[in-house]
Amino acid sequence: MNLVRSTDLGDLFHVVGVIVTAVGVAMAISGGVAWLYHGPDTIPLFSAAAVAIVFGLAANRLTARPKDLSIRESYLIVTLAWLGAAVFGALPFWFSGLASPVDAFFESISGFTTTGASIFPDPSSLPRGIQFWRDFSQWLGGMGIIVLVVAVLPFLGVGGMQLFRAEVPGPTPDRLQPRISQTASILWRVYVGLTAAQVILYLIGGLDLFDAVTHAFGTMPTGGFSPRTESIGAFSSPYIQYVTILFMYLAGVNFTLHYRTLRGKPLSAFADEEWRFYTLLLGAATVIILGAHLLAGTFDSLEEAFRSSAFQVVSIGTTTGFATADYVLWPAATQVLLVFLMFVGGMAGSTGGGIKTLRLWAALKQGMAELRKHLHPRAVIITHVGGKAVPEGVILNILAFMLLFVASFIAGALLLTIMGVDLVTAAGASAASIGNVGPGLAAVGPAANYAWMPALGKLVLSLLMLLGRLEIYTVLLLFHPEFWRR
Amino acid sequence: MNLVRSTDLGDLFHVVGVIVTAVGVAMAISGGVAWLYHGPDTIPLFSAAAVAIVFGLAANRLTARPKDLSIRESYLIVTLAWLGAAVFGALPFWFSGLASPVDAFFESISGFTTTGASIFPDPSSLPRGIQFWRDFSQWLGGMGIIVLVVAVLPFLGVGGMQLFRAEVPGPTPDRLQPRISQTASILWRVYVGLTAAQVILYLIGGLDLFDAVTHAFGTMPTGGFSPRTESIGAFSSPYIQYVTILFMYLAGVNFTLHYRTLRGKPLSAFADEEWRFYTLLLGAATVIILGAHLLAGTFDSLEEAFRSSAFQVVSIGTTTGFATADYVLWPAATQVLLVFLMFVGGMAGSTGGGIKTLRLWAALKQGMAELRKHLHPRAVIITHVGGKAVPEGVILNILAFMLLFVASFIAGALLLTIMGVDLVTAAGASAASIGNVGPGLAAVGPAANYAWMPALGKLVLSLLMLLGRLEIYTVLLLFHPEFWRR
Repeated sequence: MNLVRSTDLGDLFHVVGVIVTAVGVAMAISGGVAWLYHGPDTIPLFSAAAVAIVFGLAANRLTARPKDLSIRESYLIVTLAWLGAAVFGALPFWFSGLASPVDAFFESISGFTTTGASIFPDPSSLPRGIQFWRDFSQWLGGMGIIVLVVAVLPFLGVGGMQLFRAEVPGPTPDRLQPRISQTASILWRVYVGLTAAQVILYLIGGLDLFDAVTHAFGTMPTGGFSPRTESIGAFSSPYIQYVTILFMYLAGVNFTLHYRTLRGKPLSAFADEEWRFYTLLLGAATVIILGAHLLAGTFDSLEEAFRSSAFQVVSIGTTTGFATADYVLWPAATQVLLVFLMFVGGMAGSTGGGIKTLRLWAALKQGMAELRKHLHPRAVIITHVGGKAVPEGVILNILAFMLLFVASFIAGALLLTIMGVDLVTAAGASAASIGNVGPGLAAVGPAANYAWMPALGKLVLSLLMLLGRLEIYTVLLLFHPEFWRR
Repeated sequence: MNLVRSTDLGDLFHVVGVIVTAVGVAMAISGGVAWLYHGPDTIPLFSAAAVAIVFGLAANRLTARPKDLSIRESYLIVTLAWLGAAVFGALPFWFSGLASPVDAFFESISGFTTTGASIFPDPSSLPRGIQFWRDFSQWLGGMGIIVLVVAVLPFLGVGGMQLFRAEVPGPTPDRLQPRISQTASILWRVYVGLTAAQVILYLIGGLDLFDAVTHAFGTMPTGGFSPRTESIGAFSSPYIQYVTILFMYLAGVNFTLHYRTLRGKPLSAFADEEWRFYTLLLGAATVIILGAHLLAGTFDSLEEAFRSSAFQVVSIGTTTGFATADYVLWPAATQVLLVFLMFVGGMAGSTGGGIKTLRLWAALKQGMAELRKHLHPRAVIITHVGGKAVPEGVILNILAFMLLFVASFIAGALLLTIMGVDLVTAAGASAASIGNVGPGLAAVGPAANYAWMPALGKLVLSLLMLLGRLEIYTVLLLFHPEFWRR
């Protein structure tokens, strides 16, 4: 090991330290909530905050500031930062005696990756500070902890764009402003604004401040943690459910479109090919599932059947994972469609997980182009998305991504079944984890939880969550031998 | 409709007529078998043969000989020929009163596409002629009925290569000889030779001629129909099972390699990258499944556990679908792996179904290349298979094929669940049909059958079988609006 190399490694922890410190501050805020409610979780949250801040600051101060980040170092920083956030973010669950270390880590990474899979069978019984921290971690992870740091601390600027690219969901992060820190700041402001709007609409609907804030914190990142055991189903008011459907839908929209709308171009969404595909897909899935319900006679009223269908389609299709009904009891056809939606995810540049509608749309168009190539073997057929020709290299990247995504899903399901998990549960858990959805099928359905899963299975699912959140390549690269070659 | 167009349509049926006549001759041969055994199926088989020959000859004689086949016409001919073969090949099951028209069609297309999914709960009880016809139809479909016609009737030469390409499995059919009819003839001779070798080895093992021929007819096309209700499991002799494993494995190898081996280059397989991948994949899957069995203690002896694991891996991995054990009762992990193998299929240029190892291998290499592109964004990274650079267009075609394959599988599973089929059965049936495997999971496992499936479900599965056998594009193109545009 030479000096140059050790300096590089130091650089990495310099940035990771900032993230861990930020997580510590967030846990301190949650500790404040616990303190307000005189909760038994006050000490655990503040202790966890102290540990994270001490470690974070130490890592930051004992290392040199990064000068010039290589691409590899960016990938490593982003992965380490997310792992660091998940590890330190797990401390409150462990310190409060509510979970074993593995369970605490699972809950924490499930939060930061906005998955929303829980090991708590009865979230309603958790103390308020812990409930708040679960949703707060999702909200932080939703727009991206790196993006947050880039937005708030632009002095990290060197390599900021690379870190940004390694973290931000979607194949094509738009630069809204020349400087990446400005773009990050705009994204975060839109995110905060939408969250505030949802809180206000919840308050109007009669939710108390705590329920309003935590559920908005679970919605905008397409997270899905709820302090209520019955999830959104705890609020029978159709108004609350429709507000949730609306904001889950908005969370799955590319934030660039929100920004344009706020800048006075409300119609730019309609011109967006991906947006039309995203909206049409959710609409079509709702109609099909509604049809299946009407055939099976699951619901008493048409409105209830529509609301329940739309809620579950938007919740799963945007990878939020809130529930108003236990869809595991629904007709099998609706479950196949919901599993398919787990893979779809939201739009590129949204907080949604999954493969993203942009990739799916491009792949669909390429599939049609391949068919046409068979009809006209000598013609040059180029795939266009949004009026622009997509280079073959980009399409290749998209298709390879989809295959790696599906391959990771299969590997996850295989590993779980090896541990003795049944077929449907394993497939559902793997899909729900890599898609950052949360609830799966059968024994991990919306009315169930992940507590019973073997510890090794929880770690496999944790890795899948991280793979899904950082869009496969960032994490998978670390396993490529060439990554570690000088 | 103008004159040119109607002449074109006539041309199509000229060739389809030849295929239907050939199917008629094959049914007459089966009728001969029935007659030898004095079976009640003698009249039904000869009647079906007569109908097919009359219709086939009429279609051929009443239309003009094709002059110049366009690409579209080739696709249409191939699809119509396969549908024609399946429709006329269904007549014996219907005429003999053993099956309804839909069931008969299902059994017939399952035969020709070498799927091996059956609606007969107890094949042992079927008359000999019908048993023979089931396996004979698979054997004809295995190497390809078009290839057979091109080989035997080279006068169809015009457009022969196009028909060949539209039917022959695998992304890159090798021209072994300058003339396509010579290539087709070589392939068929290798196929006949291997079948004969298997029959002889079966006879040495003590099987009677009927069992030896029918099971060889079910093996070489990776078909899977057996006249025995217990499939190969009816023969407890390890020798018979090992012979079957060997020939299923050989059936999944590119026939070009067999040809080279017969021409005195037995080592050419070892130099073949795809062959190494195919062999390694089956080997690794056997080891994993064997491990799962040893952990679960399913079998008494190691040899039996190995034999059973290897048999099922090779049977499913080559999409044959023979069974020596009811793997539905095996540990869940082994079932996930077997479902994965259903998608894999044999090598390109083999009689195996599925996606084919060549495509999977190229996709895997492309996935690695995409990872490396992230490490070296400015480098030009080209995927090589077998020492040759693969153009991006070819990789795109392969990846799009895989996605269309998976999309067809999902659509099939969705349609089945809409008809009330449970999740695991629907997924298993859809995968086993598009992969041309035969037995699936749960209610369509190796010890079960497809008789109970709703009629509409049987038609969906029939379409999937044809999609899988003709490698998606050929059939899917007919649904493309541009196909029908002048």
